[in-house]
Amino acid sequence: MKEVKAFAPATVANVACGFDILGFAVDSPGDEIEMKLVDKPGIVIKDITGDEGRLSRNPRENTATVSVYQFLEKIGAEKAGIEVTLHKKMPFGSGLGSSSASTVAGAFAVNALFDNPLSMEELLPFAMEGERVACGAAHADNVAPALYGGFVLVRSYDPLDVVRLNVPEELCCAVVHPHIEVSTKDARNILRGEVPLADAVRQWGNVGGLIAGLEQENYDLIGRSLQDVVVEPIRSMLIPGFDEVKRAAVYAGSMGTAISGSGPSVFSLCKGMEKAERIANAKVEAFKAIGIDSDKFVSKVNKEGPKIIY
Amino acid sequence: MKEVKAFAPATVANVACGFDILGFAVDSPGDEIEMKLVDKPGIVIKDITGDEGRLSRNPRENTATVSVYQFLEKIGAEKAGIEVTLHKKMPFGSGLGSSSASTVAGAFAVNALFDNPLSMEELLPFAMEGERVACGAAHADNVAPALYGGFVLVRSYDPLDVVRLNVPEELCCAVVHPHIEVSTKDARNILRGEVPLADAVRQWGNVGGLIAGLEQENYDLIGRSLQDVVVEPIRSMLIPGFDEVKRAAVYAGSMGTAISGSGPSVFSLCKGMEKAERIANAKVEAFKAIGIDSDKFVSKVNKEGPKIIY
Repeated sequence: MKEVKAFAPATVANVACGFDILGFAVDSPGDEIEMKLVDKPGIVIKDITGDEGRLSRNPRENTATVSVYQFLEKIGAEKAGIEVTLHKKMPFGSGLGSSSASTVAGAFAVNALFDNPLSMEELLPFAMEGERVACGAAHADNVAPALYGGFVLVRSYDPLDVVRLNVPEELCCAVVHPHIEVSTKDARNILRGEVPLADAVRQWGNVGGLIAGLEQENYDLIGRSLQDVVVEPIRSMLIPGFDEVKRAAVYAGSMGTAISGSGPSVFSLCKGMEKAERIANAKVEAFKAIGIDSDKFVSKVNKEGPKIIY
Repeated sequence: MKEVKAFAPATVANVACGFDILGFAVDSPGDEIEMKLVDKPGIVIKDITGDEGRLSRNPRENTATVSVYQFLEKIGAEKAGIEVTLHKKMPFGSGLGSSSASTVAGAFAVNALFDNPLSMEELLPFAMEGERVACGAAHADNVAPALYGGFVLVRSYDPLDVVRLNVPEELCCAVVHPHIEVSTKDARNILRGEVPLADAVRQWGNVGGLIAGLEQENYDLIGRSLQDVVVEPIRSMLIPGFDEVKRAAVYAGSMGTAISGSGPSVFSLCKGMEKAERIANAKVEAFKAIGIDSDKFVSKVNKEGPKIIY
């Protein structure tokens, strides 16, 4: 019987100034999924590894498989039988788009299983549906970069308008995930409903600078634009030692450092892998100095999105 | 004695979503200035045409000449004698960067008069000083595009960070200036000091889309991004018939229509001069229908900035 194994990448949403509109994918970590066509109709989750029993084994409730039903309906294959094994290879609640990686892996794998009837653009709504099940809202700022790879701008949600951006070749990312819990809901609830116009203007100036920097491959401009004057001053209070960690990253050569998604992971962008490694170590040390353990993930900005392993 | 005549273009600031951070130059209208080296030290304004007596003939108070003093000091030519004639060729208080065109014409002309010792980047602070005299604040969103040409992003004011953006070849602009008065001060004072976070997010999504559209030469994306959900809903109340004029522009094929600067001029962007002409006429008619006369200016987006006429 036909079988595929697919990988989908972790993602950094918000990217400093781009709250709710920007995200990018990284080469690692990411989730893997195996899907096998079987005779018996229906979707069965055979196994999930790496989730410590936290994810639902019910395929209608699992973020990796919920959109597979819609996919099968779309291509007229409702009676297909599929066995699924999900390998969670990244932390939950880390601000690295864990549910998006699973949902994109699922959508990408089932498309491959049926010889890719849908384009990535056509798959996006399916993947967003998986995100809706996981988060209660169909956000796209993790799902879209996980699916497309690279940097992605969600210009608008209504109607959905997703724009792929250029990624300079040497752009690398150092993410450190401190072992503390920040719920996405809390991170959203502490935000103010209104922002000073002057801060909003600074923020959209930086969004403009970041996108111009990416398109023009101007690393200095990217670095100058990685500032968040609206969300970070509030959300960083949920991450002990954030200021020290950010300072350590700057000393180690980071172009810009900010909260990944709703946290608690802290990402830095820089030029080249060597520097990324140094920055990640500096951030791990800074968290350690205040008694917080952390994981580091160092990689290039991922340009390809999900891929087939076999 | 050496003599130059220079032109500097009108500019559209804000550009829908880019309040206080975006501007572009147009081929017409614009101001012209003549400068002549004379034996007698000091700067003399010999004549100003087209201003109906509204501008100061005192060179230390006139926006076109005030920065010339600083320029001469910078290059060590304080004792030079210069005779100036300014030709105002665009309306005052129109939202088209009238004072910026004069101040840029002055700075550009005196630089040319001394064989261009300063680059455009080095001239910017001088030109901003002229804007400060005219407006009370050293804004850059008209001055920078008037000086550099094309689309310009003012990412930050402190420190000043001005980014030149790509301009798609066929991008044209139709501006209509209704004969009503809107003071820049009033236009600023009616704005709210705080904006809803959700609106700010939509706005920076559109800023991102507009800049990506310019860099990627994606006209559709530029058009979709030309939306202002923060400032236009308030400022448009100062422009009678704004909604009808905008609707007329859309019917005539505009990609996007918004207030130029702080108004009352209304600009539209589109692809090609023929369409720009049609859009301008539609807007003139729409203003006329409610009894307001207007001027139209149709041109390509200017890529060169100021130029020497002789």
